[in-house]
Amino acid sequence: MLNQGEDPKQTVRERVAALRRWMERNDMAAAILANSDPHTNEYSAERWMGREWITGFHGSNGTVVVTTDKAGLWTDSRYFLIAEMAVEETGIELFRMNEPDVPKLEEWLASELDEGRSVAVMGEEVSVLNVETWSEALKGNGIEIATDRPFLDEIWEDRPAAPKGQIYPVPVDFAGVGVADKIEQVREKMREQQVDTYLLGRTDESAWLLNFKGTDVTNRTTTFCYTLVTLEDVRFFIDPDKVTTEHRDALEQAGVTLCDYETVGDTVGALDEEARVLIVPFYLNQALYQKLSHTRVNRGRAIVTDLKGRKNATEMKHLRECLVRDGAALVKTYVWIYDQLRTGAPLSEWTVYQKLEEMRAREDDFAHVSFESIVGYNGTGALNHYTVTEENDVEIHPEGVLLIDSGGTFLSGTTDTTRVIPMGKIHAGHKTDYTLVFKSFLKLMRAKFPQGTTGAQLDGICREPMWQHGRTYKHGTGHGVGFGLEVHEGPQNISGISAEKMEKGMVSTVEPGIYRPDEYGIRLENMVFTIDAESNAFGDFYQFENLTFCPFNPDLFDLDLLTDDELNWLNDYHREVLERLTPHLEEPEVEWLRHECRELVR
Amino acid sequence: MLNQGEDPKQTVRERVAALRRWMERNDMAAAILANSDPHTNEYSAERWMGREWITGFHGSNGTVVVTTDKAGLWTDSRYFLIAEMAVEETGIELFRMNEPDVPKLEEWLASELDEGRSVAVMGEEVSVLNVETWSEALKGNGIEIATDRPFLDEIWEDRPAAPKGQIYPVPVDFAGVGVADKIEQVREKMREQQVDTYLLGRTDESAWLLNFKGTDVTNRTTTFCYTLVTLEDVRFFIDPDKVTTEHRDALEQAGVTLCDYETVGDTVGALDEEARVLIVPFYLNQALYQKLSHTRVNRGRAIVTDLKGRKNATEMKHLRECLVRDGAALVKTYVWIYDQLRTGAPLSEWTVYQKLEEMRAREDDFAHVSFESIVGYNGTGALNHYTVTEENDVEIHPEGVLLIDSGGTFLSGTTDTTRVIPMGKIHAGHKTDYTLVFKSFLKLMRAKFPQGTTGAQLDGICREPMWQHGRTYKHGTGHGVGFGLEVHEGPQNISGISAEKMEKGMVSTVEPGIYRPDEYGIRLENMVFTIDAESNAFGDFYQFENLTFCPFNPDLFDLDLLTDDELNWLNDYHREVLERLTPHLEEPEVEWLRHECRELVR
Repeated sequence: MLNQGEDPKQTVRERVAALRRWMERNDMAAAILANSDPHTNEYSAERWMGREWITGFHGSNGTVVVTTDKAGLWTDSRYFLIAEMAVEETGIELFRMNEPDVPKLEEWLASELDEGRSVAVMGEEVSVLNVETWSEALKGNGIEIATDRPFLDEIWEDRPAAPKGQIYPVPVDFAGVGVADKIEQVREKMREQQVDTYLLGRTDESAWLLNFKGTDVTNRTTTFCYTLVTLEDVRFFIDPDKVTTEHRDALEQAGVTLCDYETVGDTVGALDEEARVLIVPFYLNQALYQKLSHTRVNRGRAIVTDLKGRKNATEMKHLRECLVRDGAALVKTYVWIYDQLRTGAPLSEWTVYQKLEEMRAREDDFAHVSFESIVGYNGTGALNHYTVTEENDVEIHPEGVLLIDSGGTFLSGTTDTTRVIPMGKIHAGHKTDYTLVFKSFLKLMRAKFPQGTTGAQLDGICREPMWQHGRTYKHGTGHGVGFGLEVHEGPQNISGISAEKMEKGMVSTVEPGIYRPDEYGIRLENMVFTIDAESNAFGDFYQFENLTFCPFNPDLFDLDLLTDDELNWLNDYHREVLERLTPHLEEPEVEWLRHECRELVR
Repeated sequence: MLNQGEDPKQTVRERVAALRRWMERNDMAAAILANSDPHTNEYSAERWMGREWITGFHGSNGTVVVTTDKAGLWTDSRYFLIAEMAVEETGIELFRMNEPDVPKLEEWLASELDEGRSVAVMGEEVSVLNVETWSEALKGNGIEIATDRPFLDEIWEDRPAAPKGQIYPVPVDFAGVGVADKIEQVREKMREQQVDTYLLGRTDESAWLLNFKGTDVTNRTTTFCYTLVTLEDVRFFIDPDKVTTEHRDALEQAGVTLCDYETVGDTVGALDEEARVLIVPFYLNQALYQKLSHTRVNRGRAIVTDLKGRKNATEMKHLRECLVRDGAALVKTYVWIYDQLRTGAPLSEWTVYQKLEEMRAREDDFAHVSFESIVGYNGTGALNHYTVTEENDVEIHPEGVLLIDSGGTFLSGTTDTTRVIPMGKIHAGHKTDYTLVFKSFLKLMRAKFPQGTTGAQLDGICREPMWQHGRTYKHGTGHGVGFGLEVHEGPQNISGISAEKMEKGMVSTVEPGIYRPDEYGIRLENMVFTIDAESNAFGDFYQFENLTFCPFNPDLFDLDLLTDDELNWLNDYHREVLERLTPHLEEPEVEWLRHECRELVR
């Protein structure tokens, strides 16, 4: 978002200075800014990338706090390395979230600010949960959160407008359940939770409920909208230009009334004061929440998130088939990479990045990549969630390893796969780390666990094999995956602090890793579906059905570290990969895959 | 607490009726009652056992809710079986907490009560956290929590008075750190958290800070008191009759002012409105919290809980030695049990219960048992946390298995050990289950894990081996243990939902189990100390030092289920048990132990 020829560090310093001038004019002691849109989306449109605009840091998670004389950027472990590079020479200090002795931003603010001062936050672009957490923590110090100051408009010249992308319907042959039936499912849960009104803040909630996809944001299905469901009607708030007449008619036939996006505040403000309104503090912005204050607000489970988290049989039929085609696209990419290497043709992170999208885009039902592919050669692979661009491209040579974490969003589902492949000479360290990651990966892939198991318990099971060898990773172990929607979705999350349960019917990733700064990164990731394992006197046990078919490079294993059992799993898996992918490949690719999937013996 | 000769079920029905009459007189739609004292202690004095008085259910965790026409008891999985027996024929419905489809009490109330009604709660005897959780959940339904109704006084005739037990000082040779130094440690953390006043609600927090033990409650070190720490002074609120003049002088010399227990409310109410007061919502009662409303209340980490959770070198020196003597006391008890069996002398759960206390009480520094010993023969062993009494005694015969979970509280530390021993004929099922429990136990005992690992991750690691065989248990995997204080203490907790970290210096239990209703229960429990394992590029890794020395019965293993590694650990452990306990035993006991600790080979 820089203008051509600008010194990026100087630009950041100037933008921070502009915010400070605004703070002074408005008697604010600090301002908090994230890349947060009115719908708390993880990936937003340029208009709402205020934090990226001011700091130059483009990770998907990060919050900047500016006081009169200091500034701090809080981000999670996925982004420590790239955030460090971003804040260098800008006067912004990096705070590594969840590391020992690193204060939370509200703790830091409490120690920096004088009593009785105010902190500016844009109420439309921050979740209820954030505002409440910060307010509670700062209350004791007499510091107030002022949520009615949309300061970004004043300091961001040429701030981009909200996008105007069209939405398009997802046929019921893919969604599995029609809009009217989904609305009925939601109402049933509303009755159980004893609410009569339910405001959907997050846009993928509306997309699931009303069976559509949006095109507001590059590489996302996001569109900016709200849905208000009551026991009698459904109102869908969206810019009318985004919906075709035909689509509008179909939605109205399913009982959905279209309303202008801009009217949501007034509608919510006019709700009956006896209305029992379900909200999810994590998914709703503060400004809209305040308009509900006259009603009986009820904080409960996010009904749509729970419903869409459990995939139906139609979705799974498509997703299983989709992941086979996706595995074939990856194999084609690998074969292309090795061809380039062999012939000495140009090969770099950026060319691989482009080739990945090209291979996936050949599929008829391709919508967009699931996220900006991570292509990390050697040292770059150790930078979690680093995204290559044409400008900071890295050439690939015939040595070391290449990490590729990528996926596609298709009408038939959303995919997310990570593999590491050798580019040439590798050493024993690569093999040990690769094999330990594989052992951790396999531990969770093969786990059996009772109903009620939490994400944190599964996370511990996955990490244990590499912990015994003194290795670990700072990111989570896995996340829920939407069906043709967001690649990260709740409610489940496999991480050390997740108390959410892994329920039957959920689709998740399993993706442990080991990272050696400046040397290489190794991560292995498959998608899994939670299915029944057994029921006995102790209750119902679940297990994971593997969904991803993509080979593990055989040269990267230290076979002595594998048990017989693990080796057998690997050989069985490779037989299945070969069998399933072959029909989607040409002969030279099949030959390569056959070699990759050869039986391994000690 | 029943009077002699009463029909317990009839008594429960009458007491519930008395509460309903009070509710009607006071226009209350419901009342919530737990065994909760003003200090949120887990084990309280009889005066505050309102839930036990009204329901007859004596588990350590349980809350009863009474409406005009229904009543429910909520308790956790440890007590499902005994709670079921307790509520039978009383008209009270049992709600199994954390089971699928079981509503939380506030959800149930929301569905039962009409809008605009009130629920009576005794503000002095309920934590801030509980009141807030219930209020938040019921707000949407227009239901209010009324916390100013001490109804128990009106319906409980002859309600016992508060106890008057003396407190006595713990010498610094045992505590490791003197009172003045502990106060300074606390103040340092207060400055870090930017508070100037800290109100200690829970009684073991005061006992740790001021190095004393109380005698208000049988088998507890509890005394009813508060401590108010500021950066300038320390006020200790306690019934003055409980403190000797000498002890009072010593406390005053350390900078502690004694104040009458009854004056705490006025003192807190008179705090300066600029005071930044640290409170812990889980440890403070609602009535006292309300008296703080004019100050700047700050919710932060429970400083004393964090400090006392990490044991110092003096405490550990005593605890290690204490656990060897405790292991010897257990071996003496086992030998006595087998003598009784062999000679045909009377043997029952109750006689074992008494013998356990007798063996521990022989130690000079014995204070009391850590908790009511669990002695469960065959089917009784499957009843988690069932406590035998003289009245419901069960005879032990030469067949099946006996579970013993017991511990002592000494000046030198608090112990907690569980073993299962065969009483005679056992079958293959016993062995499989016992060995699987052992494998889960060992998995966690030998785990290596990085700084920052949560209780939930460790819980998953422990359960995984038995999950793979389709077994699980409904209680937590482990808890923190106080030094000569409570046998359950925070902050850490090894359970599926605990996001608390396992820090270096903590003492915890590891206690997986398998329970077969009506057949038997198997649980194996050692205490562990978190120590350094290694530090490397990935950070600091910890491991557990084993603290408990007590044999595992060799006849209960299915050796084919153990790996070589597990078998070696067991043989090494038994060698160490024999070596350490022998000096504390007589010859016939040593001979028995030698056989119990014999080298096992496949």
